[in-house]
Parts: sequence; C-alpha cells; structure tokens
Amino acid sequence: MYIGIDIGGMSIKAGVVNENGDILAKYAVPTPKNDNEAFLNAMLEGINKAIEEAGIQKTEIKAIGIGNPGVVDRDRGILLEATNIGFSDISAREFLQKEFGDIPVLVENDANCAALGEFYKAESTKNFIFITLGTGVGGGIIINGRLYLGTNGAAGELGHIVTHTNGRQCGCGRKGCWETYASVTGLIETTKEHRDEIKTLSPDEEISGRTVFELARKGDKDAERIRDMWIEEIAIGVVDMVNIFQPDQIIIGGAISKEGDTILLPIIDYVNKNAFCSERLTKPKIEISKIGGDAGIIGAALIYKNSL
Amino acid sequence: MYIGIDIGGMSIKAGVVNENGDILAKYAVPTPKNDNEAFLNAMLEGINKAIEEAGIQKTEIKAIGIGNPGVVDRDRGILLEATNIGFSDISAREFLQKEFGDIPVLVENDANCAALGEFYKAESTKNFIFITLGTGVGGGIIINGRLYLGTNGAAGELGHIVTHTNGRQCGCGRKGCWETYASVTGLIETTKEHRDEIKTLSPDEEISGRTVFELARKGDKDAERIRDMWIEEIAIGVVDMVNIFQPDQIIIGGAISKEGDTILLPIIDYVNKNAFCSERLTKPKIEISKIGGDAGIIGAALIYKNSL
Repeated sequence: MYIGIDIGGMSIKAGVVNENGDILAKYAVPTPKNDNEAFLNAMLEGINKAIEEAGIQKTEIKAIGIGNPGVVDRDRGILLEATNIGFSDISAREFLQKEFGDIPVLVENDANCAALGEFYKAESTKNFIFITLGTGVGGGIIINGRLYLGTNGAAGELGHIVTHTNGRQCGCGRKGCWETYASVTGLIETTKEHRDEIKTLSPDEEISGRTVFELARKGDKDAERIRDMWIEEIAIGVVDMVNIFQPDQIIIGGAISKEGDTILLPIIDYVNKNAFCSERLTKPKIEISKIGGDAGIIGAALIYKNSL
Repeated sequence: MYIGIDIGGMSIKAGVVNENGDILAKYAVPTPKNDNEAFLNAMLEGINKAIEEAGIQKTEIKAIGIGNPGVVDRDRGILLEATNIGFSDISAREFLQKEFGDIPVLVENDANCAALGEFYKAESTKNFIFITLGTGVGGGIIINGRLYLGTNGAAGELGHIVTHTNGRQCGCGRKGCWETYASVTGLIETTKEHRDEIKTLSPDEEISGRTVFELARKGDKDAERIRDMWIEEIAIGVVDMVNIFQPDQIIIGGAISKEGDTILLPIIDYVNKNAFCSERLTKPKIEISKIGGDAGIIGAALIYKNSL
C-alpha cells in the first residue's frame, strides 16, 4: 500500500493507493499558505485521515510520494518551492520518516505525477505521453515504463516547444510556444481576438474557456470555427509528439477534457492525416483522461514502484 | 570486432569497428542501382575488403549492422526499400549469415545509426540527441544509453515538428515543419527569398547552402544577417529538444557542420537565453559532430552492442 499526496493551491489531497493504482481512500485538507510548519501538519492530517478511512495499519505503507506544483530536490526529499503557496525548502522526507519510520518518501513535480498516474491506469505499458491543457500546457513522458526526467531532472516541458515562431509571448521568455495557443489561456486569447466575429456573443459577456464550446453547442457556426481553430492548435503539438516519440498512447487531460469527443475526435483525425508514419505502422492511441483529478494522487503514490 | 555498413546513394561503406567505436579499416564500393543481387554482392565485397585491410579473421566478427537510408524490417533483418537506390525487400540477414555463420545481423535506419555512432564517440553516457542538417533535418534519440525507437520503430523524426504553423510546405504533408526552415534546403530557400537584399551576390549566381556563409566571410552584412536568420531557425528547434529531453548532450551534424563555431556559438548562446531550465540546473552540452561521415559506419557496427 502506498500514500500519494497531491499538493494544490486550494487543498492538499492525500490518498491510500494499492499496487494497481486504485485509490482505497482519499482525504483533502485546505492548503495553509506561507507557513512551512502548518503545511506539514496539514499534510500529516490528510495522510492520517486517509489511512483511517482506508482501514489499514501504518505499518502496511511501503512508500509515500508527494507531487509538488513547483521545484523539488529529489535526492534529499525536499519541496523547494511551490507556486502560490509560499513555502520554501520543506524537508518532507525527514518529517514523514519521523512519523512513518524508515520508508521511502519521494518528491516529484506534479505534472510528472499526473503523467505517472495516467500511465498506470492506461493501456500503455511502455512509451506514453501525457499532455495536460490548463492555464499552460504541461506534460510528462514515460519511456520503457519509467518516468523520463532527463539528465538534470527538468525534462518534459512539452508546452514549451515553439509552434508559431515569433508568435505570442510566452511566460518562459520565448515567443510562440505551443502553450500560448493550445492552453485554455490560449483559447481565451484566440476567442478574444475573434470576439467580433461571434454574433451570438453579447458584448459585455466575459470570455472563458467554455465560451466557444457553449455557443457552438447552441448552433453558432463562428464559435464552432474558433473552437476548431483551437483544437487544431492542440493537434499540431500532438502530431509533433507522435513524430518524436511514436508512443503506445497519448492521453490528454486538464479541465477542458470534460468536452470529450468534441475535442478528441478531430485531434485523432488530424493525427491520422498528418503524423509522419507509414500506413503499415500502428499509430499511437489517443485518448482523453478518464481519471482526471485523481491522476496526481495515484502517480505520487506510485513514484516509488516506478523507480524500482 | 563488429562490421558496420553505411548504405548511401553513391557508395556502400563497410567498416571494421572495435568495442570502443574505433574504425580499424573501411572500404567503399559504388552502390549498384535497381538490382538486389548486385547490391548484395557489392556489400559483401566491401565487407571482405575491409576485413582484409583490418587484418582480422572472419571468426572474430561478433555482429554485423547495416544502416539503410529507408525503411527496414528489424525483426526479419530485411532492407525493405531505400531512397534513390531502387532495391526492395533485400534479405540482408539471411544472405550475410550464409557467409559469416550464425552471428547477429541487424538492420536499422541510417539516421539512427548516425545517432548511435555519434553517441558512442561523445561524452554523453545517458541521454543524447543527434540532429543532422542536410536536405532535410534528421536525428536520433538515445535514452538511458539505448537507441530509442518508439513503439512502432519510427520515432525520432525530429525535423517534423512544426515551428512555423501554416509555414512552408513540407514533403511530409504538413506545413511549417522545422526541416523546411532549418535544413540546408531551407537555407537555400531563405537565401533565394532574400537574394535582392544581398548586394555582393551577382544576379546569375546559383545559390547553394554555402552562399551566405562565403559572402558573410567576405564582409557582406546582409549575407551575414540571412545566415544568422538560418542559424536561429536551427536554434529554435534545438531549444525545443532541450525543453523536451534535457539530455546530457546534443550533437549537430551534416555537411554544414564544417562551418563549426560560426554555427555552434550562436546556437549555444540562444539555448542559454531561451531554454526552459532553472539557472541552478546543468544545461546540455551542445557540440558539432567531430566524426562526420564515419558516424553511420560506427553506429551500424554497434547496434548489436547497444541492444544487449
């Protein structure tokens, strides 16, 4: 049995997870801000509540994994920093080993944990790419069944490949990164650029990532066109991933994945038409995440298993 | 001792290579066209001459590897087809095992062989990217010391990621692939687009990949500017590779690599400024190939060693 922790800006989620990646119990506590000690105590409370709910003994726990929305020191088990939470240099391993004894306590980037969680619940057994569409475009790479970290531990910044040279300014400093077009932020930007063309959109309505999806469902052809422009921006990068990795499977996650086949089917069609791959060869399966928000807990729990 | 064969449109090069990737002897024979039998006999002649020159016994050969500029069937050891050579379905393994006994005979794509050859002669021991700039942009990926082929064997089409959405038409069917800008073909195209701006270029001069390099050396600032535009197109994709893979090392090869530091230094500078990578982390070493044309022979020879 494993413990997986998914740190978010709103809550710390702790889960008890078995070898197969099934969550036996989970518990969420609000995330304390700017306070290392309060943070650690909240995390511990979450773990203890999840263990209690799962009805297992502390001694059954083989390892604990933590997914952090920021930089980690894997060797020393330290959460170095996290966006919008305001902690620094939290010695998570040291703290949790005092509570749970000398078991492995591993820390990892949250996008990598989500990728690993998706991998363990997916059909793929070998080469796998996870892409998550949100404020940015994140992702993770599994090669030969193992999370691929790169030599310096920072690999897998899939959103930061340039699809539009000299295009939109990206937070990373470059211009035209895939994420500036294919993220939900990118969709909102594109919708704003074309708002005059959407006749059913009232001038004072605030634009969100759902706007063109909702209007398209009501029959607005211009909204549909803009939605499809966005889906193509996603598909362009997905084909890039296919041409580089030729994985077994690619899973797309993130809030917008609720739109399901509306997004997925045109992407599959685009990949079939555009991937650099002989007709004789099997193309990767492309799917939308089915486990959504749980991927982070599952992946964090199974970091240790994946490292063996 | 290993035999490596590098099949090209002009010649078949055979080499005797040791465990360290040193070439003990090599021999080139002209490539027979549109004739499977003549092709096999020429290849055999090349091998035998290389063995003779190296002064070794046939029985010392542990494995033979063949790099093909086209599609191969790795499982059955067959060269399925090759661009501009006009053979089809050559049972290379069967043929060579009759001559050399029951040793491994492996077939591989030539770009992957070049990547493997570069890897064995490079500092990198783990994660490595090879990029070759020629008519197109090719490459190969080494992950954890092993050639990465992807699930269907077709991974590593690094030139076929889109850096200019809706840009130049690529032979693969997409528009704006990296190779349409960063290849030598792309350089020639860019030079032609800007030829009116290059004052020292006579109107009847044919443009090649060397044109702007030569004129820039003579002091033409416009030629220099166009040369640098091309180098930036290369650098954009190199940063993409860094952001995805964070390898130990990236080596850039191809005919134009003779230009050395003129190309390399601005790329390193661009990567240092643009890669998505914390200051605290070690960035990949980026270098120009030092072994050039021999990489294919060395890599082909060591496919077997790499597969162990």
